[in-house]
Amino acid sequence: MRFTEKLQQRVATTGSRLCVGLDPRPGDGGAAQAKDFLLQVIEQTADSAAAFKPNMAYFEAMGIEGIRVLEVILAAIPDGIPIILDAKRSDIGETQKYYAQGYFNGWNVDAVTLNPFLGYDSIEPFLDYAGKAVYLLAVTSNPGSADFQRQVLADGRQVFELVTALGERAKSESRATDVGYVVGLTNAEAVLSKMPDAPLLVPGLGAQGGDLAALAGAKRSAPDVINVSRGILYAGDEKSFAQRAQEWAAKITSGYA
Amino acid sequence: MRFTEKLQQRVATTGSRLCVGLDPRPGDGGAAQAKDFLLQVIEQTADSAAAFKPNMAYFEAMGIEGIRVLEVILAAIPDGIPIILDAKRSDIGETQKYYAQGYFNGWNVDAVTLNPFLGYDSIEPFLDYAGKAVYLLAVTSNPGSADFQRQVLADGRQVFELVTALGERAKSESRATDVGYVVGLTNAEAVLSKMPDAPLLVPGLGAQGGDLAALAGAKRSAPDVINVSRGILYAGDEKSFAQRAQEWAAKITSGYA
Repeated sequence: MRFTEKLQQRVATTGSRLCVGLDPRPGDGGAAQAKDFLLQVIEQTADSAAAFKPNMAYFEAMGIEGIRVLEVILAAIPDGIPIILDAKRSDIGETQKYYAQGYFNGWNVDAVTLNPFLGYDSIEPFLDYAGKAVYLLAVTSNPGSADFQRQVLADGRQVFELVTALGERAKSESRATDVGYVVGLTNAEAVLSKMPDAPLLVPGLGAQGGDLAALAGAKRSAPDVINVSRGILYAGDEKSFAQRAQEWAAKITSGYA
Repeated sequence: MRFTEKLQQRVATTGSRLCVGLDPRPGDGGAAQAKDFLLQVIEQTADSAAAFKPNMAYFEAMGIEGIRVLEVILAAIPDGIPIILDAKRSDIGETQKYYAQGYFNGWNVDAVTLNPFLGYDSIEPFLDYAGKAVYLLAVTSNPGSADFQRQVLADGRQVFELVTALGERAKSESRATDVGYVVGLTNAEAVLSKMPDAPLLVPGLGAQGGDLAALAGAKRSAPDVINVSRGILYAGDEKSFAQRAQEWAAKITSGYA
């Protein structure tokens, strides 16, 4: 089964488009505390999660112990819930091979985010993995997305349209790996009409202040998922992780309907 | 002392602009073998090295054991030789903070390569580290550098000129961290005249087929370094690592003169 079908199925089963972002801020308790914290989050939110998205940066920041925590939590995520490893990696093709093997074979994640700035040959080593996906950064949720991604080219296109051109090329070559895109909710309204029918990973809801109205009415058929990290892990209210996840999932469902 | 001064001094002391790339292909012997291999490379090439550049991908591909190898070899690199961690990281600013802390404080490397595709606010968390540097990917050595970096914008500039604009902005803000650029030797000739007076990290010599003639005559004053990885680690000849490094350093010196 292709990645997109698996994700589609998961969205249908749960009725949720919530992607739970696993971004542990290393606290005083270090890696051991982060591990217990994340295991609790996973246990409590799994029923509401269309997918989980650990962000490598937060694990790497804890050094080797952090990578060990990542391996533990990858193993703890129940079967059938797609895992999107948010690595935003980029390198030349010869080197990307090693990242692809490490992530898809070594860690067996379902999808990985990639930064496409090095071009098609830097994406290619990821494209021959059946059942897997890459999400290419197209328009991120930060203000700096204006610095490159939304710049206008001599031919009138914007730079992010070069990103979708890479994905369309992969599709035309019938590659085994599916290609989706990262589109920040804060910048989605202006670009959604130019996004192909491929799964979107949408950050920017919650702490970053994105508005779901941008997605309403877009009527997309691909299984887009909306990521919430801080709004579930560090909301600073009295609610449980389970409650927060249920509320975000419901909010997304109604916003997306 | 700023990073650029430290590197300038190292280039003057050694008379070498060779950056030794530490890219261990994981062999049958796994991480243990990779560690012994790299320790030998470092010991034999240190005298000829203006800098060392470990590429994270090759270590990550070996899982946790690979990260442990990275930590061992970072500690084994003699004081006074700048270490450029080739990570090509990118994320939104809030997340980049964690990478910056992990690399500059945790691992205490001197410089790190960054992918600038997420814009200035994604670079900023790295800019307040005295004595450190970031190298922004500007024009990489692979054919895919045409897909984004060398595209022409509506205002006539090429996309890589947006990268140098970020570095110039950091300079105008008198940030503590120096900003250099990655410029692939294979594509250098067409872009060198547009590069500011900032340190370049130049890959693409050796296995990738770049020609040093592209650099001859550019008469730059910043301490540019030229990276060789496979040409020293996996040349497939009977020479020692020391001999290969000496020969590449000499070749670079004469090509650069």
